[in-house]
Amino acid sequence: MSTWIHHCGERDVKRPDRFFFEPLEQFSEGDRLELDSREAAHAQRVKRHGVGSEVELFDGHGRVARALIDAVSRRGELSLRIVELGRSPRPERRVWIATAVPKGDRMETMLDMLTQLGVFRLTPVVFARSAAQSGPGRQKRWRRVLVESCKQSRRGILPRLDEPRSLSEWLGEIGVAASGTRWLADPDGMSYERARADAEPGRRTEVLVVVGPEGGVTSAEKRDLIEFGFTPVALGDHVLRVETAAVAFAAALASVSEL
Amino acid sequence: MSTWIHHCGERDVKRPDRFFFEPLEQFSEGDRLELDSREAAHAQRVKRHGVGSEVELFDGHGRVARALIDAVSRRGELSLRIVELGRSPRPERRVWIATAVPKGDRMETMLDMLTQLGVFRLTPVVFARSAAQSGPGRQKRWRRVLVESCKQSRRGILPRLDEPRSLSEWLGEIGVAASGTRWLADPDGMSYERARADAEPGRRTEVLVVVGPEGGVTSAEKRDLIEFGFTPVALGDHVLRVETAAVAFAAALASVSEL
Repeated sequence: MSTWIHHCGERDVKRPDRFFFEPLEQFSEGDRLELDSREAAHAQRVKRHGVGSEVELFDGHGRVARALIDAVSRRGELSLRIVELGRSPRPERRVWIATAVPKGDRMETMLDMLTQLGVFRLTPVVFARSAAQSGPGRQKRWRRVLVESCKQSRRGILPRLDEPRSLSEWLGEIGVAASGTRWLADPDGMSYERARADAEPGRRTEVLVVVGPEGGVTSAEKRDLIEFGFTPVALGDHVLRVETAAVAFAAALASVSEL
Repeated sequence: MSTWIHHCGERDVKRPDRFFFEPLEQFSEGDRLELDSREAAHAQRVKRHGVGSEVELFDGHGRVARALIDAVSRRGELSLRIVELGRSPRPERRVWIATAVPKGDRMETMLDMLTQLGVFRLTPVVFARSAAQSGPGRQKRWRRVLVESCKQSRRGILPRLDEPRSLSEWLGEIGVAASGTRWLADPDGMSYERARADAEPGRRTEVLVVVGPEGGVTSAEKRDLIEFGFTPVALGDHVLRVETAAVAFAAALASVSEL
């Protein structure tokens, strides 16, 4: 297994399009596989691939493969032969964002951007001031956004996306003692720079950022979060919307290799 | 003229809602004014304000006012009396983003987020691989997004939004010699950290970031940009969409007080 994908010398060469195939784990070089109908349609109709095309496959768990399309059935099924298997590097720092669910499309925009920015784990949290969230199939649609965003941004490992839960449930799960730097996005908090400087050296490989709902966290929620080790931190001079705050913290963290 | 807005001690107190009124320059304390119909409708229908309510006004040029609603006409016009005038602080660093126009809603999402993140100036640029952009009224709609975003995020000064222009026109305008740090968002560029460390101390108060279109800048465009002093810089490990790159650079810059 090589990691050619991140070591190719010619960086200007257009890299092959990526498609999702899960899981790649039990496959070997030379094996054949068939893309699911959604990915096959994307490859043919949007990206105009046919027999002989070289593509990349990824399974969202870190395995990647270079593959050739060797047959197209009359019904549009795509059969591929694996030429080479590889692995995406695991990120050194793990950024975990627990956030209120913003309304409508803004949740999907946020998931898309957070995936591109390398966020490791996402937990939708219900706060006292969260707008009512409902609708079955959201989780499935959200996961689809993550897959599409990985394809486009060439991210090999899907972010982990949890089921929505209440703040108290979630705090109970993570506990007080767990490791990692813990921040609460808060326009009245300490500056991001100071928070970075204050982060304990032993707790810098995992950063957990909580973003409250539109109306802000209640003072009781803030008290609970502080008790669980969260430091209120402000990024920039203005009040940020839910999705902007989440994306801004993820981007600021992605811009540095160390806290 | 005071600057009470940024100096109030009680930070947990809910700050009054903000509405847009332009310009505030020639007004004094005690003067009366009338909100335009869009802002008046927002104040009454969405925010439920009536006679006696206290609100804040901002004109997008840095003037702010505390005002009381003292009359509502039968047709919904709102008359206000200015209680106190103030000024928003000017940002110390000026971030200027010149970017390809992403498709559809994504432009408006980008403008909204960049406003919250304090970007000083925005120039839509047409690149060789830009998708065709058309439609009158876009500029007006975009400006409306900036105003709404200022209202919500309590930003006092509107970002400057230029008319779209071609890359060569724009490079001609900014010239080779102008001051400021110049970066080109580029997944193959040097790391953001190194670029920050490399920025010349004398050129750190203005940062200019160029973000190319979906298909990337052409090698000729990249050559031109490098000739005009732009350093290719990568933020994070993945390929970022136009709007994500613009927002990520703005957020990373907003997270630090000095380059």
